[in-house]
Amino acid sequence: MQGFAPPNKDNPNPPNHNDQLGKDTMLRASLTPLKSLTRLLPARGHTSAGASTLAPVLALATGAWFVAGSPALAEVDSEVAHIFNTFSFLVCGALVMFMAAGFAMLEAGLVRSKNVATICLKNIALYAVAGILFYVIGYSIMYPGDAWLTGSLEYLGFSNAGLLYNATDADVADLATGYSISSDWFFQMVFVATAASVVSGTIAERTKLWSFMVFVVVLTAIIYPIQGSWTWGGGWLADLGFSDFAGSTIVHSVGGWAALVGALMVGPRLGKFSGKKINALPGSSMPLATLGTFILWLGWFGFNGGSVLALGSADAATDMSIVFVNTNLAAAGGVVAAMITAQIWFGKVDLTMALNGALAGLVSITAGPDLSNHLLSIIIGAIGGSLCVASVVVLERLRIDDVVGAISVHLVCGIWGTLAVGIFGSGDLGVQIVGILAIGAFVSIASLIAWFVINTMMGLRVSAEDEVAGLDEAEVGLQAYPEFGKNSF
Amino acid sequence: MQGFAPPNKDNPNPPNHNDQLGKDTMLRASLTPLKSLTRLLPARGHTSAGASTLAPVLALATGAWFVAGSPALAEVDSEVAHIFNTFSFLVCGALVMFMAAGFAMLEAGLVRSKNVATICLKNIALYAVAGILFYVIGYSIMYPGDAWLTGSLEYLGFSNAGLLYNATDADVADLATGYSISSDWFFQMVFVATAASVVSGTIAERTKLWSFMVFVVVLTAIIYPIQGSWTWGGGWLADLGFSDFAGSTIVHSVGGWAALVGALMVGPRLGKFSGKKINALPGSSMPLATLGTFILWLGWFGFNGGSVLALGSADAATDMSIVFVNTNLAAAGGVVAAMITAQIWFGKVDLTMALNGALAGLVSITAGPDLSNHLLSIIIGAIGGSLCVASVVVLERLRIDDVVGAISVHLVCGIWGTLAVGIFGSGDLGVQIVGILAIGAFVSIASLIAWFVINTMMGLRVSAEDEVAGLDEAEVGLQAYPEFGKNSF
Amino acid sequence: MQGFAPPNKDNPNPPNHNDQLGKDTMLRASLTPLKSLTRLLPARGHTSAGASTLAPVLALATGAWFVAGSPALAEVDSEVAHIFNTFSFLVCGALVMFMAAGFAMLEAGLVRSKNVATICLKNIALYAVAGILFYVIGYSIMYPGDAWLTGSLEYLGFSNAGLLYNATDADVADLATGYSISSDWFFQMVFVATAASVVSGTIAERTKLWSFMVFVVVLTAIIYPIQGSWTWGGGWLADLGFSDFAGSTIVHSVGGWAALVGALMVGPRLGKFSGKKINALPGSSMPLATLGTFILWLGWFGFNGGSVLALGSADAATDMSIVFVNTNLAAAGGVVAAMITAQIWFGKVDLTMALNGALAGLVSITAGPDLSNHLLSIIIGAIGGSLCVASVVVLERLRIDDVVGAISVHLVCGIWGTLAVGIFGSGDLGVQIVGILAIGAFVSIASLIAWFVINTMMGLRVSAEDEVAGLDEAEVGLQAYPEFGKNSF
Repeated sequence: MQGFAPPNKDNPNPPNHNDQLGKDTMLRASLTPLKSLTRLLPARGHTSAGASTLAPVLALATGAWFVAGSPALAEVDSEVAHIFNTFSFLVCGALVMFMAAGFAMLEAGLVRSKNVATICLKNIALYAVAGILFYVIGYSIMYPGDAWLTGSLEYLGFSNAGLLYNATDADVADLATGYSISSDWFFQMVFVATAASVVSGTIAERTKLWSFMVFVVVLTAIIYPIQGSWTWGGGWLADLGFSDFAGSTIVHSVGGWAALVGALMVGPRLGKFSGKKINALPGSSMPLATLGTFILWLGWFGFNGGSVLALGSADAATDMSIVFVNTNLAAAGGVVAAMITAQIWFGKVDLTMALNGALAGLVSITAGPDLSNHLLSIIIGAIGGSLCVASVVVLERLRIDDVVGAISVHLVCGIWGTLAVGIFGSGDLGVQIVGILAIGAFVSIASLIAWFVINTMMGLRVSAEDEVAGLDEAEVGLQAYPEFGKNSF
Repeated sequence: MQGFAPPNKDNPNPPNHNDQLGKDTMLRASLTPLKSLTRLLPARGHTSAGASTLAPVLALATGAWFVAGSPALAEVDSEVAHIFNTFSFLVCGALVMFMAAGFAMLEAGLVRSKNVATICLKNIALYAVAGILFYVIGYSIMYPGDAWLTGSLEYLGFSNAGLLYNATDADVADLATGYSISSDWFFQMVFVATAASVVSGTIAERTKLWSFMVFVVVLTAIIYPIQGSWTWGGGWLADLGFSDFAGSTIVHSVGGWAALVGALMVGPRLGKFSGKKINALPGSSMPLATLGTFILWLGWFGFNGGSVLALGSADAATDMSIVFVNTNLAAAGGVVAAMITAQIWFGKVDLTMALNGALAGLVSITAGPDLSNHLLSIIIGAIGGSLCVASVVVLERLRIDDVVGAISVHLVCGIWGTLAVGIFGSGDLGVQIVGILAIGAFVSIASLIAWFVINTMMGLRVSAEDEVAGLDEAEVGLQAYPEFGKNSF
Repeated sequence: MQGFAPPNKDNPNPPNHNDQLGKDTMLRASLTPLKSLTRLLPARGHTSAGASTLAPVLALATGAWFVAGSPALAEVDSEVAHIFNTFSFLVCGALVMFMAAGFAMLEAGLVRSKNVATICLKNIALYAVAGILFYVIGYSIMYPGDAWLTGSLEYLGFSNAGLLYNATDADVADLATGYSISSDWFFQMVFVATAASVVSGTIAERTKLWSFMVFVVVLTAIIYPIQGSWTWGGGWLADLGFSDFAGSTIVHSVGGWAALVGALMVGPRLGKFSGKKINALPGSSMPLATLGTFILWLGWFGFNGGSVLALGSADAATDMSIVFVNTNLAAAGGVVAAMITAQIWFGKVDLTMALNGALAGLVSITAGPDLSNHLLSIIIGAIGGSLCVASVVVLERLRIDDVVGAISVHLVCGIWGTLAVGIFGSGDLGVQIVGILAIGAFVSIASLIAWFVINTMMGLRVSAEDEVAGLDEAEVGLQAYPEFGKNSF
């Protein structure tokens, strides 16, 4: 790209003095770190074609005001923009990483004490495995670039530069890309871990540890990256115009579909359903579940805010701010709606409904947190919160045992949020439905095959005896609360 | 202000090429995001008057060295400064948001297990409600701007641009303002939530959920914003020169006054005082209380550091660094002083005293964390830590039942910290006292009216039967620890 | 250094207009905030010597590609670089500060319920004391500068400018330094707190509170800063070329040696070893231990990432990104290796092994997280994870009672990580061994003296009676879980 020529040594600041065309290129420079959009370009030097491909996608992905308001700005030096973009990925990525702790605490609080250590182990193990697998193979599949095989080989450590696969001119490539490739990898990696975290809660308290870990390998190395490549990797859904800002569908519903299929395969917990009766199996620690929810809420600022994928211009910073505000308002709407729904429906406000209401609001806004109408965010979140409460009730009536309500939160609200972009936002409703169905069908079928093979090879479910005793004894060999739990006395 | 003219499209970078005067204007551009100070100006174009109003306020708010040292610097491009200012609001705001989790854990650890789920619910609900109410009405009241009614209508969603109420030229206005308005909203919103969080702990274990929520609505939509407008909104206390950097009075003591009036209205818990005897009702989980304190300490870096309200110059970054150091040292001083006071006074170091000592130190430094003498921060924090221990004892003797010690931490140390700015810092002691009294009187009376009306309409206190059984059973319909608590066996 | 001359007021931006030499100097300007490297220079104006000293050290510390790729970049204005560097210290420092909460939760989860409140108190108290002592004396010892006594006196509050010891021209000095000195202090302070946190876990459940606090004073005011000055303060180990990026040896093994000596001095807990039998004394809360581990993992991004000590250039941002990726992959490798080792060795995956595996991986990569080969990070972390499991077993056989496994995690893996830089990285293996031995010998002997004196003066160990009853009763006067623990019923 012309605007990306290395700054002239005698005149270090030429891009600032360019004509309108030059400024437009600068603008793209600070915008291009949109999820690997630059990788769509057959070669990074072919600006004119690239730019014309890019422009409408940008408009779709970021809302009309974003591009419209830009020409007046974009005075930011390309290296400064690079630092901002990179640091944004790192800070936001760290917040999303912390969501792994949020899921761990939420799930530890919502399972019974005899299974708490196991769910903790699953959560830290899945985060570790997701990171390694996304490094070894997932990222290459999701963002194929010009030559993913080569890239993959190099980044397995066989080149000197590791992840920076254009090794010889890594830094220059970097500056042209607009951000450090490693920071982008970090940010994308924490997303795949989120998808895997969704699964662990639903099928808790009866699924074998190592069987679950094998599923995590399949999900994070293959299933997630393949569907992710369709949109964020620049595949056919991106071409259609499917709009999913931070992953209501691409991350949350993917975890939700995998969880739903898993729940159907592994069956309900012993004692959950007896005849027509649905038994509550209360979670062991409400404050841990609350802490987990707050941590997830915090992490979601990184999840949605970082998905602006740029901080190198006033426009990008404004966009990120709008995303923060909408994310918070949607979660707040979800809490209030879930509380009111529960109060009206059940006569009491179940704390777990309020917590899931927050998460429901967050998932619901994730597909379109860049809305410029904040009131709409509250409404979208509130609808999500109510939907989640209803979904929890419906799933129980359908005899689907979802221990923590993850299907209601991540799948149902993931679908709702993606539709909302078609209804209220810049997305085309038809395309949104195509995306939801395509990803849903692919992930369901792929998960079904994976769960089936795992079940056949090593079994999915612990024995009834182990389930009654608790997985901590059977699988982890210790108790979560050796001095408090019923088993201890 | 002249320096704030929208960047010329043909010559996008003129401020960098200005003479010394131009640079001074640039400097102000990167400093102006002081809490809505720009909104004091009747109209943003009237520079000369605005600038002369601004200068002394800046000097007051930030310490003399801040302005004095500036002329040599301020080479930062206005768009880059905009990004820094905005990102600072977002990162610091996220840290303050996490304080909601800190309050939740602190309070969950300090109430008895039969009330833990209720206090968790109150904390997530109050954060949600505070956010919505501050969006719908509070922010407009606190920062009236030229025409708050119009602003408010637009930002209720009736304009396309939502919060960005100068819709048609939102981005340009943004760059002139020096930060994204949405990021400022986010940062201000988390402060009102903090004030509300203070209240929930004091009146825990006997107050009705929905009555408390109605009070949160009144506090966050009306009481907090009105008094906040007096200083941060550019009202009469700002004109007097009242100095409260990050809100010892404006945030913490406001929560503390509301809590005190609430505690008097709702009365002590059953069994707290029997005849002359004061009974300890020990909290259910010390590690959760400790976690909550650490989270609050972390969040306070955002609370005080973000209140520099700028990061777009080396001066601002230095200021933020000094604030971080002072904040940490004051908290450390509070811990050590509370431990020593407790050891001498009671012969043992009660953990809860050390925890409250940390918070006491933090509240104490909040009015003046920009002190250039760090040793003074330790002393101010240590005095706060000792005061807090003494206050806990005195309040108990006065038969005021404050479950978590929030009145001692947030009201007593809030007053102390505000006075300290008059004693050691740049504030005028007389004016500081006027501010403390005015805000105290207003918040107490307004809270009294609110609590009284709520009590009359729907009752404040649960029945004695429900209180004995625990609010979790009565109000939330589940147990926080169904497998451990005394009730469970 | 020429490039460091205070900005000329009449020509505020000359570095941007320099020739190639000038830009190289600029580049160093944005790189120099490597841990106090600038302080190695006898006086900051002596550029040519300084620069030639600096270059090879930079190459060593950051890997060859880092410097090689740089000349094309470095267009960042010095004030903008200053802001980036400073903000990086603050954000990363806040993450490291939060590690104090991580240690508190990890240790609270791994001790028995009767000692939980005490370990919480020790953790918040040690963080407070470490901060004050490092302010009062430690920092001066560690980073002597030209005249540490003067510096120290000024920064004890006897000058107006506190920490900014070049008081009269603080801001100018600041800009030349490349970052706010206060932000650097904050970042260094949280490291010393980490070293102290390591100690508390090992000797938990039998060590007196106030005796431990006295040791913390000695460790943070004297022992840690003296050995730290050898490398990061520009002493003889730096001259030799000892390479310890973020402190595998300088922080973690220092805590580990102090803990080992303490464990030997204070002896094992009652009931841990009976004859030949080794008894498990299971920790009270696995979810808190898990939470603590996740918080530490999060904080480690600040610990290692912030140790790049710069963010003011695309190179620095890229370096930080690479550090984030390697840090995460090493931790992931540690988890997986520990799980597999435990599964093979014990037939079950003990959760505590997986948690310590994560920390082991993190400590192992801390000496060299700037590796450009990411696969190697997984391997280094995995070896650390396995080593840690083995070390836990060996230490128990040696009758050394380490309650939380901190010696295995921080000392054993700290040594391993430091060696790994000599084996795989840019360090010289011989020099690495010299550094490990020198620091190990010094810290062990100094700790031995300190523990011995403390033991003689005030006793280290509580009475057997108090130990059986629990330290919470004896030392803190309350119970951590008054309603749940065995003692409560």
